Amino acid sequence: MAADVPTLVEQAREGRPRAVARLISLVEGASPQLREVMAALAPLCGNAYVVGLTGSPGVGKSTSTSALVGAYRRAGRRVGILAVDPSSPFSGGALLGDRVRMGEHASDPGVYIRSMATRGHLGGLAWAAPQAVRVLDAAGCDIVLVETVGVGQSEVEIAAQADTSVVLLAPGMGDGIQAAKAGILEIGDVYVVNKADREGADATVRELNHMLGLGEARSPGDWRPPIVKTVAARGEGVDEVVEALEKHRAWMEERGVLAERRSRRAAHEIETIAVTALRERMGELRGGQRLDALAERVVGGSLDPYAAADELVAGVAGAAAGQARGVQD
Amino acid sequence: MAADVPTLVEQAREGRPRAVARLISLVEGASPQLREVMAALAPLCGNAYVVGLTGSPGVGKSTSTSALVGAYRRAGRRVGILAVDPSSPFSGGALLGDRVRMGEHASDPGVYIRSMATRGHLGGLAWAAPQAVRVLDAAGCDIVLVETVGVGQSEVEIAAQADTSVVLLAPGMGDGIQAAKAGILEIGDVYVVNKADREGADATVRELNHMLGLGEARSPGDWRPPIVKTVAARGEGVDEVVEALEKHRAWMEERGVLAERRSRRAAHEIETIAVTALRERMGELRGGQRLDALAERVVGGSLDPYAAADELVAGVAGAAAGQARGVQD
Repeated sequence: MAADVPTLVEQAREGRPRAVARLISLVEGASPQLREVMAALAPLCGNAYVVGLTGSPGVGKSTSTSALVGAYRRAGRRVGILAVDPSSPFSGGALLGDRVRMGEHASDPGVYIRSMATRGHLGGLAWAAPQAVRVLDAAGCDIVLVETVGVGQSEVEIAAQADTSVVLLAPGMGDGIQAAKAGILEIGDVYVVNKADREGADATVRELNHMLGLGEARSPGDWRPPIVKTVAARGEGVDEVVEALEKHRAWMEERGVLAERRSRRAAHEIETIAVTALRERMGELRGGQRLDALAERVVGGSLDPYAAADELVAGVAGAAAGQARGVQD
Repeated sequence: MAADVPTLVEQAREGRPRAVARLISLVEGASPQLREVMAALAPLCGNAYVVGLTGSPGVGKSTSTSALVGAYRRAGRRVGILAVDPSSPFSGGALLGDRVRMGEHASDPGVYIRSMATRGHLGGLAWAAPQAVRVLDAAGCDIVLVETVGVGQSEVEIAAQADTSVVLLAPGMGDGIQAAKAGILEIGDVYVVNKADREGADATVRELNHMLGLGEARSPGDWRPPIVKTVAARGEGVDEVVEALEKHRAWMEERGVLAERRSRRAAHEIETIAVTALRERMGELRGGQRLDALAERVVGGSLDPYAAADELVAGVAGAAAGQARGVQD
């Protein structure tokens, strides 16, 4: 049954969680009403401040998210949480069942919690996560926390598409190297060394300082990412994290960096949707056996893959042009 | 200076390593001559058997690759090795300096060794690796080993684009869960538990057996991925790995699966090149400030990202159609 989008949007604005949940389902499921929802949300977006939070498994992401939510709630802010599950690129099924439960905030009407698994198709999360953020934004959240596991390029990329990105580490996990490999050391605006009561916390801070400082000649006006120590399970250091986030926000607003970052994020979002649309069109061409026929010729050696790609692109462009003409007629 | 492509190709066919290296540089650097090279290589490809080899850091990939190369060389086969470095999606620089040196094979004229780092742009490796494989194939390699670190989706995907994919594990690394997260447990045609002289090797084999068996009702004709124990550093079990690879090849050839897999690989390759081309075109439109203008409207709330993507796609298609017309005129 088709949803009544205007009513859902109105209810979401009033803070009704079921309407918010329903809208997110519509956008992440790429329902036929996706476009209607997005058009309705557009003028309502832009209020929420988006915080990305990423780190390797075991650094205490859920606990940290929960503690941050607590701090924001005490300050009277409405908070949305988008917890992104990595899943296999091949099965389409989520492998991690142990998702954040966020027990203490589950019944708070000022908190929306949503888990999201990778969709089956390529680029699925990169495409769906920003749409879910838009729903939470339009629903009146002041802060949207996007929590991802920093194990894959796409997860890291999602966390990087935030107003402020927080990278979490923990001592004694050989974490530095792992983090470096995943690229998460390069996206942090704020670094948090959680479980700071454990042995090796200071060494981790030192190592991090060293890695962050390497090869970077910063200008005086540049943002220097702070490193905050926390014991999230006991709430220690959490206020300092919030303070660091506020400082980064103020710094960006003063310099016009926030507006710039949001433009870049929107551009990235548009491009991702466009690439997905073009990919789908190629899939339709494949359904029409065009790609298969090209592949056979490449395997047989009568065509090279570049020449084949040219033919495919020409087909996609032709189909798009045909569609455009169809609309005009 | 433009390279003399026909001469380079001829020299590569004669087994001259510098010509092979030069051709790979031309294709991975996306030089203006890329298309000329690919067209020249097309009719020469299809002889090499491509083996993908992936696993977490520390399982002994380099040692295993080296041992496999030794086994193939003893059988008189020419071998190409493509060692793919993961690198940050944000810096474009390779972070791992400790690449395979392959000391014992470095001076063997029947072995080509090539390391490859992620290119700066998105999808870079997915696009460049198959082209390098084509060069090694055309140069007369019987076997091409593509070695990747199984830490990210794109690396795993590269290893999956092989005739036979080998997944390496080692005991006592909590490896199972890590492997599962990266999706590498789903791509193996052959599994190798290396460092099998260490404690916990049998437990790893059991765990692997359990994970591979889960939820899969195989038909009698299906390929059941074998698990081979090795101590690659001492050469133990390496002949068994080669034997497992040969069995898998024979199994695929008998059933026409190899031809099917190669068609699918070519289709994937064509699609990747096509998407890259379309992305580049969007970048050109961005250079023309079209994307930036759309992003501003999305940030301002006067346009939603889907409607913006429609405009972008129409622009790309229009440009392609215009180009096509330009050629015809």
